[in-house]
Amino acid sequence: MRQVCMRCGMEREGLEVRCKRCGGPFKVEVEDIPFSKNLRENFPYIKNWISLGEWHTPMIRSNNVYFKLDFLNPTGSYKDRGSVTLISYLAERGIKQISEDSSGNAGASIAAYGSAAGMRVKIFVPSTARGNKLKQIEIYGAEVIKVEGSREDVSKAAENSSYYYASHVLQPQFRDGIRSLAYEIVSDLGWRSPDNVFLPTSAGTLLLGVFEGFRHMFNQGIISKIPRLIAVQTEQVMPLCSKIKGLKYTPPEKVTSIADALVSTSPFLLPEMEKIVKEYGDCIVVSDEEILNSWKELAKKGILVEYSSATVYSAYKKINPEGTSVLVLTGSGLKVL
Amino acid sequence: MRQVCMRCGMEREGLEVRCKRCGGPFKVEVEDIPFSKNLRENFPYIKNWISLGEWHTPMIRSNNVYFKLDFLNPTGSYKDRGSVTLISYLAERGIKQISEDSSGNAGASIAAYGSAAGMRVKIFVPSTARGNKLKQIEIYGAEVIKVEGSREDVSKAAENSSYYYASHVLQPQFRDGIRSLAYEIVSDLGWRSPDNVFLPTSAGTLLLGVFEGFRHMFNQGIISKIPRLIAVQTEQVMPLCSKIKGLKYTPPEKVTSIADALVSTSPFLLPEMEKIVKEYGDCIVVSDEEILNSWKELAKKGILVEYSSATVYSAYKKINPEGTSVLVLTGSGLKVL
Ligand SMILES: Cc1ncc(COP(=O)(O)O)c(C=O)c1O
Ligand SMILES: Cc1ncc(COP(=O)(O)O)c(C=O)c1O
Ligand SMILES: [Zn+2]
Ligand SMILES: [Zn+2]
Repeated sequence: MRQVCMRCGMEREGLEVRCKRCGGPFKVEVEDIPFSKNLRENFPYIKNWISLGEWHTPMIRSNNVYFKLDFLNPTGSYKDRGSVTLISYLAERGIKQISEDSSGNAGASIAAYGSAAGMRVKIFVPSTARGNKLKQIEIYGAEVIKVEGSREDVSKAAENSSYYYASHVLQPQFRDGIRSLAYEIVSDLGWRSPDNVFLPTSAGTLLLGVFEGFRHMFNQGIISKIPRLIAVQTEQVMPLCSKIKGLKYTPPEKVTSIADALVSTSPFLLPEMEKIVKEYGDCIVVSDEEILNSWKELAKKGILVEYSSATVYSAYKKINPEGTSVLVLTGSGLKVL
Repeated sequence: MRQVCMRCGMEREGLEVRCKRCGGPFKVEVEDIPFSKNLRENFPYIKNWISLGEWHTPMIRSNNVYFKLDFLNPTGSYKDRGSVTLISYLAERGIKQISEDSSGNAGASIAAYGSAAGMRVKIFVPSTARGNKLKQIEIYGAEVIKVEGSREDVSKAAENSSYYYASHVLQPQFRDGIRSLAYEIVSDLGWRSPDNVFLPTSAGTLLLGVFEGFRHMFNQGIISKIPRLIAVQTEQVMPLCSKIKGLKYTPPEKVTSIADALVSTSPFLLPEMEKIVKEYGDCIVVSDEEILNSWKELAKKGILVEYSSATVYSAYKKINPEGTSVLVLTGSGLKVL
């Protein structure tokens, strides 16, 4: 497997987290991987899967839209698709102690898979972090380390810890695992591409990972087009939409939106997201009121998600595009009871 | 489809909830249904599935045991297997208003599927009921009605309400839907029967439903034996184990065990459970301390369940039986954060 810097093309040598030349993020080159309908074979760099029952989440139809229930992954969010590949990869390379910075779904997912792999896991969180996801992280047996200061100070503490930095944003095998979601969507539709895929977008791992999966299938003739990828952000945190739509945006000091998983006010992967959405999709901004209404409407249909995940339904209703739309429901509502 | 009283054999005429002759519970006769590996065909009485993405939950292996992650059903518990068949059946018969008594997983599941079917749903609960599952019931849009008095008073209020009583304990299509779990276990194992299946047991719908599924496959030559069905109960609530093992048991006034979903102190289906467990299995009692230890151990493996579900792991470690064991993990730990 080749891994290259997304900014300058330099090859990754070992387990370094950033490009040694430009500091950019790495990605896994999928060009050389022959596509297989036996989906695990599309990740040939994993020999020994540390599996907790991730993947193959249900997709259900309601009128003209498809809901991909990715919150039915084992820790309650789509992040498990990234954790299973990252942690399996690191475990095979002898990593036994990892650090990560997230008080949300990514932290919970990395904690679960890290523990399952027999690793020691330190999760760095802002000193103000609270709530069910933090409890979930602790229950899986991870050590939670509270850091005073800004969100960046938390990341720095995780990166500089003596444990290996298993960042969900930077590690290419995390983002790469999310290709599996694109494969499943196409498989669920009888090996056809949908016209539109709606994705809540914060740090960008979901958007970039899913894109790579569709690109892989397109390049190898499995699908005849790459669907429009509709990134969805909140009025309060819209670094990507502001670029795409030319909207005024000032990163908030503190995120108070009910979509409390969409918190990347200045995401590191912004240039990469911008390129893809400009070419293949769009970015839609939704308000807290719209999110709350969509959340309630989904619940009345029997679908209980977290607020951040309901954003895609608001965006769908707003633009009501032609063709087949898949809305990815990313996080479980059981975490916000 | 024939439906008969499990106690006197009288046929069900319509939608009556109890046998008109003896007051007993009905069951769906599976004798006449040809087994199909296309699993939905084993429920020929459903034409139009009100699906929320239930079924096909992952089964993962850890050392010598298999964990069936049935908490990854859409509302977070195995109950969705019963709700999907019951609610689809009732919807096809024009029922638009239903009542149910449960402040737990069954209530949440019936609320979700009922709402999804466009029904009005009244869930009757004890006036002392609290907690996340109650919130979940309300979020799906059900009306929660608090009843003063004993647990039996709550059931009576639900049964006597003007809405149709969609009891998860009495309705044969609820219990019958749980056959699907037996089919999946056998399918997951490559169409072989395991040697032992561990089931937390309270009202008995899980045990009786799973048994019918195995019996169906055995009678039609799909599997060569019915596995041992190991019912698991707590020291505090063990009406079945006390009968099987001849243990002294006084139904508690109030259930204080951490296994707070196993609350049927004098289950209506006790005679039916007793018969099956005497012939095909065993009943194992576990303590709160054992449950808590198993719960923590599962979490360290990355598997987060509710306490009541961890009981099966305690029972497994206690008897450590030979052969292949499947432990059914019934409820999501995200509900108890
Ligand atoms: C539930 C949920 N949805 C969507 C996202 C957005 O994913 P990403 O940060 O990869 O853009 C997150 C990220 O934390 C999330 O937790
Ligand atoms: C999580 C969980 N496990 C097991 C059971 C036991 O199932 P049954 O009541 O059908 O015996 C229940 C019942 O409420 C439950 O909620
Ligand atoms: Zn570079
Ligand atoms: Zn009868």
